[in-house]
Amino acid sequence: MTRPVLVQKFGGSSLGTPSRVKRAAQRIAASQDQGFSVVVVVSAMGDATDRLLSLASRVSKEPAARELDLLLSTGEGVSAPLMAMALHDLGVSAVSLLGFQAGIRTDRRHARARIVGVTPERIERELESGRVVVVAGFQGIGEEMEVTTLGRGGSDTSAVALAVGLKAQACEIFTDVRGIYTADPRLVASARMLPRIAYSEMLELASAGARVMHPRSIEIAEAYGLELHVRSSFHRGPGTVICSEEGIMEDRNRVRGIAHEEHVARLSVVGVPDRPGIAAAIFEPLAEADIAADVIVQTASHEGITDMSFTVSSADGKRAREILESVAHSIGARTVLAQNGLAKVSVVGSGIRGQPGVAARIFQTLASNGINIEMISTSEIRITCIITADRVKDAVQALHTAFQL
Amino acid sequence: MTRPVLVQKFGGSSLGTPSRVKRAAQRIAASQDQGFSVVVVVSAMGDATDRLLSLASRVSKEPAARELDLLLSTGEGVSAPLMAMALHDLGVSAVSLLGFQAGIRTDRRHARARIVGVTPERIERELESGRVVVVAGFQGIGEEMEVTTLGRGGSDTSAVALAVGLKAQACEIFTDVRGIYTADPRLVASARMLPRIAYSEMLELASAGARVMHPRSIEIAEAYGLELHVRSSFHRGPGTVICSEEGIMEDRNRVRGIAHEEHVARLSVVGVPDRPGIAAAIFEPLAEADIAADVIVQTASHEGITDMSFTVSSADGKRAREILESVAHSIGARTVLAQNGLAKVSVVGSGIRGQPGVAARIFQTLASNGINIEMISTSEIRITCIITADRVKDAVQALHTAFQL
Repeated sequence: MTRPVLVQKFGGSSLGTPSRVKRAAQRIAASQDQGFSVVVVVSAMGDATDRLLSLASRVSKEPAARELDLLLSTGEGVSAPLMAMALHDLGVSAVSLLGFQAGIRTDRRHARARIVGVTPERIERELESGRVVVVAGFQGIGEEMEVTTLGRGGSDTSAVALAVGLKAQACEIFTDVRGIYTADPRLVASARMLPRIAYSEMLELASAGARVMHPRSIEIAEAYGLELHVRSSFHRGPGTVICSEEGIMEDRNRVRGIAHEEHVARLSVVGVPDRPGIAAAIFEPLAEADIAADVIVQTASHEGITDMSFTVSSADGKRAREILESVAHSIGARTVLAQNGLAKVSVVGSGIRGQPGVAARIFQTLASNGINIEMISTSEIRITCIITADRVKDAVQALHTAFQL
Repeated sequence: MTRPVLVQKFGGSSLGTPSRVKRAAQRIAASQDQGFSVVVVVSAMGDATDRLLSLASRVSKEPAARELDLLLSTGEGVSAPLMAMALHDLGVSAVSLLGFQAGIRTDRRHARARIVGVTPERIERELESGRVVVVAGFQGIGEEMEVTTLGRGGSDTSAVALAVGLKAQACEIFTDVRGIYTADPRLVASARMLPRIAYSEMLELASAGARVMHPRSIEIAEAYGLELHVRSSFHRGPGTVICSEEGIMEDRNRVRGIAHEEHVARLSVVGVPDRPGIAAAIFEPLAEADIAADVIVQTASHEGITDMSFTVSSADGKRAREILESVAHSIGARTVLAQNGLAKVSVVGSGIRGQPGVAARIFQTLASNGINIEMISTSEIRITCIITADRVKDAVQALHTAFQL
């Protein structure tokens, strides 16, 4: 192929209505005119996935993951051919491919499959004959031709995997925001769009609640050195480039942004006899139930007894408590406590590395605003505080000001 | 496999809502309890196909057949996993398969693909492990893993092809009517359900407007000697068995039923120079535009000039006229006439064979009711009259009485 490959991913809100599909098609056509071989990855239209989930809940109390994958994959099975039709209508030669046709090979873990490889022959053949190739995101094909889905944010992962597999020159993620901001602009009026952000920082922001991109897709992009370009489908504008730290000339070693996540619940297993294997005994049953424990804190052991606390998303709170109560009994813990109505606020940036003053300033800022910290968790480039949900807005605004973002 | 295989096909109206899906699932579960290995073929739910077509029309003036196939195939892609979930909820082990997973191989004629074979290994493996297999009807897989659809009534064809491929003991077609009637019960209160009907008769009835089953599926069933059992999804009851003529002990050599079809248009190419190749010159462009000409009548040539008349469905009338007008010019015909608001009434039965009195009685009956016959067409076991649409009900009732059905 002589023309460079460009991968463009359009999320559900960018495809919410037929007229939005047509608008996205114009954008794609313009990219082809600029001399690119274009591969488009589409999510399901608007709330299509929610409607399919609601259908499933009306026929079954607990839909099997395998059947749910087949059902949900029809969401992208609709948007992909529609996009191809919209391109045809603009006089652009195009073909749509489902996951199995596009060669998106995955393992067989339904509802959260991992891409094990991309077999790009069909896509390359279509590109060579001058077509735009529209690929249904979020889905792949496992052994025995089983249809799988990649879990939340899966279309981002599809786009990044295809960009890597096709050695694309660039990968654009079109979404309903203009780029990556220093904080949620709905909470902080002075939030600023970042022209560039490092993979590691974006990863921490995404894990800490910024929903623009799925963490997994960022990990893959970083592993293969693929720059991602996040931009709005509704506005022209530069957007944000996610790249290696070396690619960021300005603003090095700084705090990059404030992320937050509401709907957090805390669970504590109290009075646990402290012996090897206790953490596994607590977290394995949760993992089996597909409940992700987030911030985990174990208190220092006192007379052979310890407490273990961690957060989960509010939606998982009730199930997590039930599981823990039976675990607590079997490991001889005293009791299980649960608290809802919490939130996570995180400060992220490579500047946190080696600057102890950042943590101090966070705690000071929250204290001077009368915001109590329930739990603390840190990584090399992130500091997360768990607070009550009703103070999230205050906390994000205060921290945004404190770090002069 | 030791258990006999039963194929059960559920049409769109039988799956219109989640509660109908659940009701159908109970019926399937009961069949499994009776000792069958059950393969279920499902159509798209209710008006899903219409909604998908409307989506397509909102992004493209003329959607490409290949993309439309991919889009429409999601209709069954939804109903198949939903049915599997509904079965799970009843404690029945079940798995759903799309056309490509079920091994429904077709040619690559999009929108009207023909099944070229069934590779039933996967289905057989699932049946052997005790599962009900739910197959998405109407769709198949062509060369290069292209998704195809089988055209109108395609799910019937899927069911029959699977029943043949799996050497099924029986094939049940669940629909919104109780069986095959001597006439449309909405027009003729005294219409009677037939316990059995011959393939050839059913084929003529279906081609003449009785919409219960698609003609192609009946042809395949006849070719392989597979009995089809048409029954209601909403009522218990014996339904109608479609079988060979030898299988019908009672009522042999009789008129079997009256079919009708409204929304018929007549086109006439007038003043055509009568020379070889004229019919081809007229009908080839129509076939290319996928317009089916039905009843065709050519008047006896007079002084080397002839008229050619035929019917099409009203929906195709305008397009057919446009095509004919350019054809008429090139073959030197005088003009093209078009008439809408017509209907077809057909008398069907193996008793027509060799009984000239049947035709006479039809014409007499219509005449004595003051119904004018516009065109006549006959096969060995069918006599069709084209009349004006406003007299259809009268004609069907009068014929039903005349032949003592």
